[in-house]
Amino acid sequence: MKYVDATVEEVNEALLQSAKAFQLYGKRSLKERANFLYAVAEEMKNISSELLSIAQKETHLDEARLKVELNRTLFQLTSYADACAEGTWLDLRIDTGDKARNSPKPDLRKMLVPLGPVVVFGASNFPFAYSTAGGDTACALAAGCSVIIKAHPAHAGTSERVAAAVQKTAKKQGLPEGIFLHLHGAGFEVGKALIQHPLTKAVGFTGSFEGGKALFDLAAQRNEPIPVFAEMGSVNPVFLLPQKLANETGKLASMLAASITQSVGQFCTNPGILVGVKSKVLDEFKEFLGEQIKQTSPTSMLHPGIAKSFQKNRAKAIEEGAVVVATNEADVEEDESIPTLAEVPAEQFLQNTLLHKEVFGPYSLLVECATKEEMLEVAKAIEGQLTCTLMATDEEANKNSELIDALKEKCGRFVFNGVPTGVEVALSMQHGGPYPATTDSRFTAVGADGIKRFARPLCFQNWNNDLLPDELKNENPLGLWRTVNNVLSKDPVNAD
Amino acid sequence: MKYVDATVEEVNEALLQSAKAFQLYGKRSLKERANFLYAVAEEMKNISSELLSIAQKETHLDEARLKVELNRTLFQLTSYADACAEGTWLDLRIDTGDKARNSPKPDLRKMLVPLGPVVVFGASNFPFAYSTAGGDTACALAAGCSVIIKAHPAHAGTSERVAAAVQKTAKKQGLPEGIFLHLHGAGFEVGKALIQHPLTKAVGFTGSFEGGKALFDLAAQRNEPIPVFAEMGSVNPVFLLPQKLANETGKLASMLAASITQSVGQFCTNPGILVGVKSKVLDEFKEFLGEQIKQTSPTSMLHPGIAKSFQKNRAKAIEEGAVVVATNEADVEEDESIPTLAEVPAEQFLQNTLLHKEVFGPYSLLVECATKEEMLEVAKAIEGQLTCTLMATDEEANKNSELIDALKEKCGRFVFNGVPTGVEVALSMQHGGPYPATTDSRFTAVGADGIKRFARPLCFQNWNNDLLPDELKNENPLGLWRTVNNVLSKDPVNAD
Repeated sequence: MKYVDATVEEVNEALLQSAKAFQLYGKRSLKERANFLYAVAEEMKNISSELLSIAQKETHLDEARLKVELNRTLFQLTSYADACAEGTWLDLRIDTGDKARNSPKPDLRKMLVPLGPVVVFGASNFPFAYSTAGGDTACALAAGCSVIIKAHPAHAGTSERVAAAVQKTAKKQGLPEGIFLHLHGAGFEVGKALIQHPLTKAVGFTGSFEGGKALFDLAAQRNEPIPVFAEMGSVNPVFLLPQKLANETGKLASMLAASITQSVGQFCTNPGILVGVKSKVLDEFKEFLGEQIKQTSPTSMLHPGIAKSFQKNRAKAIEEGAVVVATNEADVEEDESIPTLAEVPAEQFLQNTLLHKEVFGPYSLLVECATKEEMLEVAKAIEGQLTCTLMATDEEANKNSELIDALKEKCGRFVFNGVPTGVEVALSMQHGGPYPATTDSRFTAVGADGIKRFARPLCFQNWNNDLLPDELKNENPLGLWRTVNNVLSKDPVNAD
Repeated sequence: MKYVDATVEEVNEALLQSAKAFQLYGKRSLKERANFLYAVAEEMKNISSELLSIAQKETHLDEARLKVELNRTLFQLTSYADACAEGTWLDLRIDTGDKARNSPKPDLRKMLVPLGPVVVFGASNFPFAYSTAGGDTACALAAGCSVIIKAHPAHAGTSERVAAAVQKTAKKQGLPEGIFLHLHGAGFEVGKALIQHPLTKAVGFTGSFEGGKALFDLAAQRNEPIPVFAEMGSVNPVFLLPQKLANETGKLASMLAASITQSVGQFCTNPGILVGVKSKVLDEFKEFLGEQIKQTSPTSMLHPGIAKSFQKNRAKAIEEGAVVVATNEADVEEDESIPTLAEVPAEQFLQNTLLHKEVFGPYSLLVECATKEEMLEVAKAIEGQLTCTLMATDEEANKNSELIDALKEKCGRFVFNGVPTGVEVALSMQHGGPYPATTDSRFTAVGADGIKRFARPLCFQNWNNDLLPDELKNENPLGLWRTVNNVLSKDPVNAD
C-alpha cells in the first residue's frame, strides 16, 4: 500500500484549518478536553486488535511488545487527561490588588494558555506511544492546542488508522475537524513545510539527532522562531563501581544484557555505554555479558533503513577503535540487527568523541578505565544524556560524590542500581536531558509535565471577576489548586 | 572614566571560574541562597546614596525615578529570595515505587536543578532593576546558577559599583568568588564571546529586538544550543472601545499621556500604539491627549545613542506615513526626546508593517479604524507583545469576545482599563509575550516564576532515601510542597 506525500498546498490548507479549529478548541474546558482524551483511548481500545495487526506487519515488532506499547499509549491518554482536568499544571497564580496603596497595586491573575497549532512527528520506534496519538499529541491536546501529525513512513498505515479513530472521536464529541489532522511525508519536504508555516506554533519530535537538529534549526531560522521539543536519543551510560560489580557480577550482567537487547535495542534509553575500572571482576562481568549477547539472535529491526543505519554505525564504531568482545553474526539478514558488545580503553574513548555516538540497536560499548580518576574523566567528557545510571553499593555512593555530581549535570534521569530502559509514565518522570539528548532540557516528553511544553502563561490585570476564565475567578468554581498571594490554596479569593 | 572591554582570554577565564564556582554554589541549600540574596539587598541599601549618585550622572534619570527603581531592585532580591526558600518553584514530584507490580514500578523523584553559568546582559533603561543585580541575576542566583554580568556601557560605573557590593557580600558569606563575575564590553564582541563559550549554559537579556535576536541566533548556532531569554520590547497596543472612550474621554487621555511620557517613554511597556474607531469622541480624545503631549518638554534620554535611535525611528515612522498630531520640538537638543502623538488610518497600518515597529521613547501612534471590524483586523495583524490593553465598559467587554480572544493570543499580560506601564513584581506577573516581544513566551522576566528560566528537572530513580537531596527525602525535612503520587502535600512520604 502506498501513501502519498502531502503537497505544499495541503500543508498550507492543514495549517489554516488547524488554526481555525484551535480558536474553538482552546476554549473548551479542562473537563471537555479530558473527556476527549478519555474517549480517544476508549476508541483505540475498541479497535486494538486491528491496530496491533497493522502495526505488527509494518514494524517487525512482536505482538507482546506492541500490546505493551498500546496499553502504555492508552495510559498516557487517560493519565494526561486526569492531569489536564485536575488543573495543577496550569500554574494558577493570583495576587489580589490594593487600591489603597500609594501607586495602586493591580489585581494580577495568571494561568497557562495553549500556544496554538502543534506539529507532531511520528517516531519510528514507537508506532503508538510516541506517534499519532502518543505522548506529544496527548500533551498538546491536553494543553488546548490543535495537532497536525506528520506520519512516520515506516508505519504510515498504523498512523492512518489511529488518526481515523481520533478524528471519529472528535466528530462524536462535536469538536471541530481541524483539531487533529494527519499528513503523510516520506521525505523531508513535508516536515520542512510544516515547520516553516507561519501558523505553526510548536513542534514535538522523537527520533535521530540529525532529524531533530534539522527541525530545530528550521524553527530557529523562522521569522518567528518557535519552540521545538526534539528528543534525539542518547547513549545512557552506566557507571559500574568495583564493589557493587564484585558483589553482583552475574546479576548486573544479566540485567544489562536484557536492557541492551530488549526490543532489538530500539529504545532511546538503551544503555549504549558501560563504564568500569579494569580488574579481574570487570573481565568476569564482560564474559558473562558477552555470553548473553552471543546468545541473542539477530532479529529484524523496525524497518530496513534502521537496520542499515545500525550496521553502518556499528561498523563505523569498530573502524574508530571499538573492539568487538562478543557478537552474533550467524545468518544475519540485511534488515537485521547484530547483537554486539564491544570494548575500548578509556584513554582512547576520551580522545575520540566519535566513539561516544549512539549506535541505535542492540550494541553497547564497554569503556575500560585504568583508574577511578579516569572514570571521573569519562563522566565529565560525555555529552548530555536522557539518563545516566550508577551501579554502586551504598558505601561506594557515599564515597563518590564527585562522580555523582558530574553525572547529575549530564542527564535528565539518574538511575541507581537499575537499568535505564523502562520509562515509567508518571508526573515525576523526566524524559529530557541536556543537549544533544533533547533540544530543551527544561521540559519532559514523558509524564503530564510534558503538557507545559505547549502552553505559555497569560496574566490578566484588573479584569472584572465575571470576565475572567473560570480557573481564575474569585469563587474558584473548578476547585483548583492556586497560589493566592504566595500561598497555595483551593480556597475562594476575597477581592473586590 | 573609561572602562576597558574584556578580552577573549578574560571571557574564557571568567567562564572557567564561573563553572568551578557553580559546582560549589549549586549545592548550597535554598536557605543559604536566599540568605545571600537578602544580604546583597542589605548591602545595596547601605550604599544606596552612592549608587543613586553614580547612576544619576550616567543615565540622566532623575533621583526620584532611580530611587523607585533601586527599591524595586531590593524588593526583587528579597521577594525572589523568599520564593527560593519557600521552594514551591522546584516543582517537586514524588511517585513512590511498587516492587510487587508485575514489572516493578520504580521510585521516581523529580526536582528542578540549576542549569550552570548564566550570562546576564545589563539593560540600558534599568541600571538597577534589569542590570547587574537585577531580575535576571536574582533569578539565576536563586536557581543556584553562577552569574557573569556583561555591563551595559551606558552605566558601566553603576554596574561596577553594584558588582563590588555583590562580590563583597559573597565573600562575607564564604561563597566562591566565581559565583558572580563582572565584565565590561562596549561593543558586540564581548557579548558574542560570552554566548559562544561552551561553558555558558543560559542567557538573560533585556534590550532591543536587534540585540536580542543577534544573541538568540548565536545561541541557536552553537554546537550545544542554549536557552536565551531575551525581552526585546513591544509596542503594547491599547484598544479603545467607543462607549468607554465616550464615558471617560479626558480621564483616558490623561492616563495614557502619563503612561506614554513617563520616564521619557523609556519603558518596554510604553503604549506605542493606540487603536480606536473614527468618531467625534476619538477626535476629542486625540485633542486632549495631544494637548498633554505638547506640554511635555523634550528631555535628555538615557544616553545619546538612545536619543539618536529615537529621533531616527520617529523620522522613519513619519516617512512611512505616520502623521504628527501633536509634538513638542521646542529647543530640542541632540540627546533629547521629542514627545509625539502621531496618527495613521488603519488601512495604511494594515498594509505597512514598518508602522508596527517600536519607537522607543515618548511616542505613540493612534491607529484610526473605519469600523469595529477593522479594529479586529488590526488586533489580528499586530505582532507578539509584552502587553495588550483593552479600554471598555463591562457591556463592551461582554460583546467583543472575538476582539478579546484575538488580543489574548498576542500578549503575555492583558490589561483591562489601565495602562501597561508599571510592571508589578509578583508571582502572578507575566513579563514575556509571544515573539518578537520575547524569545520564549513560556517564561517570564519579572516575578519569581522567572527563576524557572535557569533550571531544569532532574529525576532520581530508585535512590536510597539518605542519598537523595533533602528536598526529596521521605521525611520532607524542609517542609516543602510536593506532589506525592499526584496529590499536593507537605506530608512525609511512606516508602521503603
